[in-house]
Amino acid sequence: MRTALRAVSGPVNLLGYDTSAKPLAPGGKSKAKQALADVGTDLVGYQERLFAASTAGARHSVLLLLQGMDTSGKDGVVRHVVGQVGPAGVSITSFKKPSPEEAAHHFLWRIKRALPAAGMIGVFNRSQYEDVVITRVHDWIDDEQRTERLAEINAFEQQVTDSGTTLIKCFLHISYAEQRERLLARLNDPTKYWKFNPADIDERAYWSDYQSTYSSAISATNTESAPWYIVPSDSKPYRNWAIGKLLLETLADLDPQYPPAEFDLEQARQRLRPPY
Amino acid sequence: MRTALRAVSGPVNLLGYDTSAKPLAPGGKSKAKQALADVGTDLVGYQERLFAASTAGARHSVLLLLQGMDTSGKDGVVRHVVGQVGPAGVSITSFKKPSPEEAAHHFLWRIKRALPAAGMIGVFNRSQYEDVVITRVHDWIDDEQRTERLAEINAFEQQVTDSGTTLIKCFLHISYAEQRERLLARLNDPTKYWKFNPADIDERAYWSDYQSTYSSAISATNTESAPWYIVPSDSKPYRNWAIGKLLLETLADLDPQYPPAEFDLEQARQRLRPPY
Repeated sequence: MRTALRAVSGPVNLLGYDTSAKPLAPGGKSKAKQALADVGTDLVGYQERLFAASTAGARHSVLLLLQGMDTSGKDGVVRHVVGQVGPAGVSITSFKKPSPEEAAHHFLWRIKRALPAAGMIGVFNRSQYEDVVITRVHDWIDDEQRTERLAEINAFEQQVTDSGTTLIKCFLHISYAEQRERLLARLNDPTKYWKFNPADIDERAYWSDYQSTYSSAISATNTESAPWYIVPSDSKPYRNWAIGKLLLETLADLDPQYPPAEFDLEQARQRLRPPY
Repeated sequence: MRTALRAVSGPVNLLGYDTSAKPLAPGGKSKAKQALADVGTDLVGYQERLFAASTAGARHSVLLLLQGMDTSGKDGVVRHVVGQVGPAGVSITSFKKPSPEEAAHHFLWRIKRALPAAGMIGVFNRSQYEDVVITRVHDWIDDEQRTERLAEINAFEQQVTDSGTTLIKCFLHISYAEQRERLLARLNDPTKYWKFNPADIDERAYWSDYQSTYSSAISATNTESAPWYIVPSDSKPYRNWAIGKLLLETLADLDPQYPPAEFDLEQARQRLRPPY
């Protein structure tokens, strides 16, 4: 029985998704935290098996892609969900404003370079979707370019999944009011000033544009092999649990196995007899 | 008062270091585990400050370099010590047998590419020291080449520390008998077969060579700015605590600070008044 969020289906309008909903929630805040810890314990085991299987030639990997408005909790998911897994089995990439070198290449160039190796859990904190959302909201690209890029993204994601990477695309969905509270919280805590950028307030003027541009980008790229999940994210404990559970069910479906010994066990034991 | 391991001094002979010693240990197994958890809590705070400071231009980073014989616990340190810190603030590199591309470059080429960015805690699981130890033990390089490489390593590490990276070099020291036990444990647990390589048994024939070659490499590269720590590692809980504590004291010495607000706090608060 599926107990994690379902992928969206049909055309998506984010306005129709409640940011404070808690579908399938294991309970309130403290129950969600405990459930996340339980998910973490299971994740550790699956991650090790995923990695172990890759040492024997299995090609599977998992890529968790995180998108969302500022303060929606992408960093929090990395810390509280992904942070539960052994760090050597995880590769995290935070995509920022493209460097001059990145900007000189096709927009998917830096994305392809960051794909997880076999056996790894990759995490994209922002992604190729910046190149069809923020760029369109600010008119740095036009509709034609955007349509072209969306098609390129679909073709690219199909290649990625064909080559053995399971893609989980999450949109961390918060409300306009919740973002205000989170920005204000940063202004009221000297240990959080560094996370604040006044430009984030400017961006709020484009909130509706972002919501509609995300809606159409999600609709255009929600494919069977690379589905989107809208994660209600006004509640941090719920958000963390929901994404942890999604990751866990994805790994459970892959069901990676420890490889058998490819050497003579008994001979190896004999060779290690004391005093050797 | 310093409560972490001290760097070695003078010429080092590993034969003189007890692999089961527990200098400064907080107590037995369960106390060491609790102490490690406490260290982890503090590490989380320092790591965040290190990263936050870098967003305001601070250039500091920390690099934890792990060397040791097979089964000495390098992976375990990554998982249990480094794994306590937020994964986005850590960059881990496992150096394996050089790829054809790596082998076509100077031996420090791949090392330099993996150095941590400002604000990051880098971890090297194996390192440039493979290029002066395993290579010398197996006569892939001669003494002259080895001496040359050691000088290059010293010059390189001086540049690294001059540019703001604090280097912590740890040798995880286990006994010949302890390695046997750990290899046998892998042979007796189907979830660990994948970690076993029969070639690891072959390497045991070179144990003494490794110990003496490591001893002279450590002696030649134990500088004031890039000191070596010999970590007795027959006890896993002690090893984890000792390295965690070293990392913690290094960060405490750096004492990174949250940067002040570089924007008008009051104006930002005003701009976020409802309904905006």
